[in-house]
Amino acid sequence: MADWPKSIHIHEEGPREGFQFEKGPIPTEAKVELIDALSETGLTEIQTVSFVNPKRVPGMADAEEVVRRMRKKPGVRYSGLWLNDRGLERALATEKIDVKGRIVLCASEPFLARNQNSTLEQMVDMQKAMIATYQERGILIDEGAVQAAFGCNFKGDVAVEEVLGIVRRLMDIAVEHGIELKTLVLADTMAWAVPQKIRSVVGAVRDLYPDLRVCLHLHDTRGMGIVNAYAGLQMGVQAFDSSVAGLGGCPFAAHKGAAGNVCTEDLVFMCEEMGISTGVDLDRLIEAANLAEQIVGHSLPGSIKQGGSLGKLRRAVNQGR
Amino acid sequence: MADWPKSIHIHEEGPREGFQFEKGPIPTEAKVELIDALSETGLTEIQTVSFVNPKRVPGMADAEEVVRRMRKKPGVRYSGLWLNDRGLERALATEKIDVKGRIVLCASEPFLARNQNSTLEQMVDMQKAMIATYQERGILIDEGAVQAAFGCNFKGDVAVEEVLGIVRRLMDIAVEHGIELKTLVLADTMAWAVPQKIRSVVGAVRDLYPDLRVCLHLHDTRGMGIVNAYAGLQMGVQAFDSSVAGLGGCPFAAHKGAAGNVCTEDLVFMCEEMGISTGVDLDRLIEAANLAEQIVGHSLPGSIKQGGSLGKLRRAVNQGR
Repeated sequence: MADWPKSIHIHEEGPREGFQFEKGPIPTEAKVELIDALSETGLTEIQTVSFVNPKRVPGMADAEEVVRRMRKKPGVRYSGLWLNDRGLERALATEKIDVKGRIVLCASEPFLARNQNSTLEQMVDMQKAMIATYQERGILIDEGAVQAAFGCNFKGDVAVEEVLGIVRRLMDIAVEHGIELKTLVLADTMAWAVPQKIRSVVGAVRDLYPDLRVCLHLHDTRGMGIVNAYAGLQMGVQAFDSSVAGLGGCPFAAHKGAAGNVCTEDLVFMCEEMGISTGVDLDRLIEAANLAEQIVGHSLPGSIKQGGSLGKLRRAVNQGR
Repeated sequence: MADWPKSIHIHEEGPREGFQFEKGPIPTEAKVELIDALSETGLTEIQTVSFVNPKRVPGMADAEEVVRRMRKKPGVRYSGLWLNDRGLERALATEKIDVKGRIVLCASEPFLARNQNSTLEQMVDMQKAMIATYQERGILIDEGAVQAAFGCNFKGDVAVEEVLGIVRRLMDIAVEHGIELKTLVLADTMAWAVPQKIRSVVGAVRDLYPDLRVCLHLHDTRGMGIVNAYAGLQMGVQAFDSSVAGLGGCPFAAHKGAAGNVCTEDLVFMCEEMGISTGVDLDRLIEAANLAEQIVGHSLPGSIKQGGSLGKLRRAVNQGR
């Protein structure tokens, strides 16, 4: 009935999401400690910091220092986030961030207007300018992303045809610039998705671009993160963005304290229990999640760190026999 | 690919679960207020109290008083819990509890030994004694339940064949006593289930007893409550136990504060967004969830009360047009 993948790739976004979202100042040393701990879990891609204006995001003012001190583990990709040339320059200057380009569009114009004070056409122009910058510098662009792909607080529901229109637009921009995109990230930016929506959007994208690897960026703000990931797995989705312990949050939720990204260790638990390989050592990841909670000084949304993994219980049962 | 139900039945267990589990004393008036609020949401079955030994469960000492004061709404079934004749007597004496009988077995003997100081054979004998009591009094028995149907902290994994063995045993007991069971509750008592386990167990039970209505009692202790409900829906499951706001907890989790029952409003949200009718007014249910949180005085696990429903956002978008 389903196209279950044998394994999945996880892009861990917890450090960047969390350090950016948390109100309290987090010591540079603690940030480094978390990134280093995550490096030892088997995760192969970790988003570390944002290179954004420190006046606007004070929590990221030490981005360079975090990157300088973190220990790069061979086989792990360390990504970063930037929104413009200046940020890209800073990422490159670290000589430690694994820099790649990305084309980003948005399925909701009202969201763009509210959140980025931009129209879709302005966003397209900005993407083309970034592509030029990447190409001048010989930076690989192999990923596209669509924000608000499943619905939007300011636009309401987003029809499958509308998302497809944006995906086509994005793919056309890539082709125009001689870029072959390998991955398309579909982001549920404001947590509107339910499993059937995931199925219909992923299915439609796959029908149109069967060779494209779909990656789901899911928010758990309405408690649907894991079930939406499951719906993606059933459709053969092999790549997910997620945050250890559920670090980060959602500025678009009804209440402060609502969850943001789907939680990495909960996703790993589900996959591994169903025989889908993640390459991650769950017990080590839970330790990193507990560390994240200590660092931010309040409880974080992930469930497995509370409920406990089953591996330990199975071992205890077996030893008792 | 799936046997989606058009609608589901929800057995709301929040009041009983919560009032029993919470440490702090909860005023009788607050309990009544929550039950009355739930009665106005469209829910049609609400488990109100336990008739258990007040020395062992002090939070339930006011069970009769809660039931006396609560306002019964026509069309709503008000259930209660009891573990023996004495409890049943008390439930009957209220003349307000909708009393039904149930046959309960457990798929894990180590759990029975630890939790109830009983063997399976002793449990069978106890069930037979309860059946005799129900039948003497002319009380309908139309439901069976299997505890630990998906795994156990003390036994480890429970094979599908083992669960089936217990289900067969339970059905045989029913037949021996001239009882026709309509519903079988499969309980994930210690939160071991993942979606594929739900699929295999529910599928096997359905193959054996196609006319039996399966009800899932899911714990969210490892964050799998909603995805397991979804896996059940995909198999055509039409009945679920759940708790408003995720009231209650799990004494078997690794840490205090881990979630218990799957959250009613999150389940309602998912179903309604996928076109599966629950009969429940989500916004009213969220109000009841907020009330539950006020009553217990700490945050409760449900997500929708934090993230907010989409109905309000859709209305706001439409009004803005």
